[in-house]
Amino acid sequence: MRTRAAVALEAGKPLEIMEVELDDPKAGEVLVEIKATGLCHTDEFTRSGADPEGLFPCILGHEGAGVVVKVGEGVTTLKPGDHVIPLYTPECRECPSCLSGKTNLCTAIRNTQGQGLMPDGTTRFHMLDGTPIYHYMGCSTFANHTVLPEIALAKVREDAPFDKICYIGCGVTTGIGAVINTAGVEIGSTAAVFGLGGIGLNVIQGLRMAGCDMIIGVDLNDDKAEMAKKFGMTHFVNPSKVENTVQEIVNLTKRGADQIGGVDYSFDATGNVKVMRDALECSHRGWGVSVIIGVAPAGAEISTRPFQLVTGRVWKGTAFGGAKGRTDVPKFVEWYMDGKIEIDSMITHKLKLEEINHGFDLMHEGKSIRAVVEF
Amino acid sequence: MRTRAAVALEAGKPLEIMEVELDDPKAGEVLVEIKATGLCHTDEFTRSGADPEGLFPCILGHEGAGVVVKVGEGVTTLKPGDHVIPLYTPECRECPSCLSGKTNLCTAIRNTQGQGLMPDGTTRFHMLDGTPIYHYMGCSTFANHTVLPEIALAKVREDAPFDKICYIGCGVTTGIGAVINTAGVEIGSTAAVFGLGGIGLNVIQGLRMAGCDMIIGVDLNDDKAEMAKKFGMTHFVNPSKVENTVQEIVNLTKRGADQIGGVDYSFDATGNVKVMRDALECSHRGWGVSVIIGVAPAGAEISTRPFQLVTGRVWKGTAFGGAKGRTDVPKFVEWYMDGKIEIDSMITHKLKLEEINHGFDLMHEGKSIRAVVEF
Repeated sequence: MRTRAAVALEAGKPLEIMEVELDDPKAGEVLVEIKATGLCHTDEFTRSGADPEGLFPCILGHEGAGVVVKVGEGVTTLKPGDHVIPLYTPECRECPSCLSGKTNLCTAIRNTQGQGLMPDGTTRFHMLDGTPIYHYMGCSTFANHTVLPEIALAKVREDAPFDKICYIGCGVTTGIGAVINTAGVEIGSTAAVFGLGGIGLNVIQGLRMAGCDMIIGVDLNDDKAEMAKKFGMTHFVNPSKVENTVQEIVNLTKRGADQIGGVDYSFDATGNVKVMRDALECSHRGWGVSVIIGVAPAGAEISTRPFQLVTGRVWKGTAFGGAKGRTDVPKFVEWYMDGKIEIDSMITHKLKLEEINHGFDLMHEGKSIRAVVEF
Repeated sequence: MRTRAAVALEAGKPLEIMEVELDDPKAGEVLVEIKATGLCHTDEFTRSGADPEGLFPCILGHEGAGVVVKVGEGVTTLKPGDHVIPLYTPECRECPSCLSGKTNLCTAIRNTQGQGLMPDGTTRFHMLDGTPIYHYMGCSTFANHTVLPEIALAKVREDAPFDKICYIGCGVTTGIGAVINTAGVEIGSTAAVFGLGGIGLNVIQGLRMAGCDMIIGVDLNDDKAEMAKKFGMTHFVNPSKVENTVQEIVNLTKRGADQIGGVDYSFDATGNVKVMRDALECSHRGWGVSVIIGVAPAGAEISTRPFQLVTGRVWKGTAFGGAKGRTDVPKFVEWYMDGKIEIDSMITHKLKLEEINHGFDLMHEGKSIRAVVEF
C-alpha cells in the first residue's frame, strides 16, 4: 500500500513529507494506522545527525497511538480495530531478559531493531523507486501507517484519545516509570529533578503520585517553574542563581535530626553529563539513589569520585522508565483515563504532518512541552 | 596509664614502637586491651602519606580484637572481661542513618572520628611529653590498650581466637558483607571479583556462601589463582593475558539462551578506577550490579558512558560491607566458629608489635594475605 510519511532523507536536513510504499505485515507483524504521534528529543537527536547510530533514509517517530488495520500470520493477541501504542522497547515475555523479572529491556528483536530493520532483516517501507527506508526504534510513527512486530504493541482501551495517549508511548512512561519502577520511591521521600522539560514534568508527577514530601525542580530557565509547580514541584533551584547547586539542594533537605542533607532520590532529565554528576552528588549519603534518564551526546562520559558510591549512593539509569510495555502501558492509559496522570496540559501544540518541521523548531525554542502531530 | 604502641609520627616514615600515655575512658567510652590486630591496606594508605586526610602523630590500626578492661560512666552494654571487636563504623542505633534501616553508615560520631578525636573532641593518647596523639578511624588498634566509644565495640563470644577474629573487624566483613548486604547476591548468580587479595578472597567466599554458579576471579598475578580456587573461585582471568578483560568475562558468561553475557554481580577490590570501570562494564545489561569496595587514590575519578547505566547496570559502593557492626560482627564470629567462614588460611603471618613495619613490607611484596600482630 501507499501511505504518507515524514521522511528523514539525510542527517541534518528537514524531514520531507512524501508518499511511500508500505509492505503488508509479515508473520508476527501488524499493520497500524497511526492517529497521532509526539515529537521527542530523541527523534531530533537522530534527525540532526548527532546520533552516531542514525541510519538514513528513515522514518523517525516512536511516540504514537493508532488502530490495528491488518495482522500478519500467527498474530494472536491483536486484531483489526484494536487500539494500540507502539513500543520501542518490546515485551516478548520469552527472552532471558523478559524472563529474568529484573529488566524491561527485552532482547528478542534488539539486533534488527538497532539496524533499522524488522525482525526478518528487511524493511517494510520503500521509496516509490524501491529504495528501502529504515525503520526507527522499531516504530516509525511519523507515517500515517506503519508495521510493527506484535510484541512491540500495547493494546489499550478504545475510549482513550489518541492525541493524548500517544505521549504514554515515551515521555509519560519514561518519567513516571523512572520514579515507580527504577527508583522505587517511597511515601515521604525527598527528590530532585534536573531539567523541567517534558520528561522532568513527568518525573515530578510520578513523585507526587509516589507521595514525596519535597520535590525540588532544577532548571536554568525560571519560566519552567510555574508549570512544574502545577505538577507537584515544591521547591525550585536555578543553578545560574546559586553558588553551588549541590550544596543548595543539600541545605534544602536538612530536616529535623538529619543535618547531613541530600535527597533520597534524584533524576537527570537533561542528558548533560555534568548535571548527571550533580544529581548523584546531591543525593543522600548512605542511601541516595540517582537515576539517569537523559540521553547524553555521543562519547560523553559521566564521572565522580568513587567515594560518592562507597559512602552509599547508588547510580542507576532507566530506559522507557523500566516499564514492560505490553503490561504497563495499558495500565498507564487507565491511570490517565482515571485522572491519576495529567497529560492534556503538556500537549502544548497540535500540528499537521506537513508542519512537523515546525514542531522541531518549537522544541529548539523551548516553546513546546510536547508537540503532537495528528493524522 | 601507660601502654605500648606503634606510633606514626610522620607521613611516610616507619612506625615507632614506644610507650604512650592513655587516659581513662570518659563517659560512654571503654578501655580495651587489644590482643591482636591485622594490618590493612588502609593503614598503609595513611601511613604512606597518600591519604590527604591523614593526621600525625597518630596510632593507626582498625582491625583488632581484645578484652574490655574498664568502662566509663554510663556504659551499659559492656563490662570488664567482655571480648570485643572495635568498629571503625559504629552503630549507635539512634541517629537518622541507623534509624533509616537503609545504611550502616552511622553518623553519631562521624565528625570527631574524621578528625582523629574521641566524641568530646579530645584524644586519649598522648606522648610522654603530653603531645596529643590522634586516634585513627576511631580504633587505633596498633596499641596494646586503646579507648573507644561504647557504640564502636561489638561484643563477641569468648571462645573465639583473637588472632583470627580480629580480621572480622575489617577484611572479612568488608568482603562477605559486600556480597550479602550491599549486592544481595542470589543463589545461581554469576559474579566477577577484581583483585584477589585479602578483600577479594573474602568476596569470593561470600559468593560461595551465597550459592553463586560462576565465580570469576581477575588478577594480574597468576599466583593468586590457587588460593582463590580454595575459597570458591571457578574461573580465572589474567587481564595481561587476554585482549579485552570485559569481553573475556562477557564471553565466559554467555549461557544457554542468554547470548548477551555479562556477570550478574561484579566487585572491585583493587582501588584502581580503571578496573572499577571494567567491573561495571562486564556486568550484565539489564540488571548487572557492580560494587566498588577498593579505596581509590586521592582525587581519582571513575567514569563510564551513561549508556551503561541507562541499559540497566547499577553502580554502587560499600563501606565495611554494609555491615552494622554491633549487630552483624558477632554473627560473623559465630559463622567463623561454626565453620561457615574460613579465616585461618588467610592469616599468613604472625608478628610481634616490634615487627610491625615488616608487616607493611610483606604487604608491598604481595607475600601476605593478612599479617596479624599479637600482643
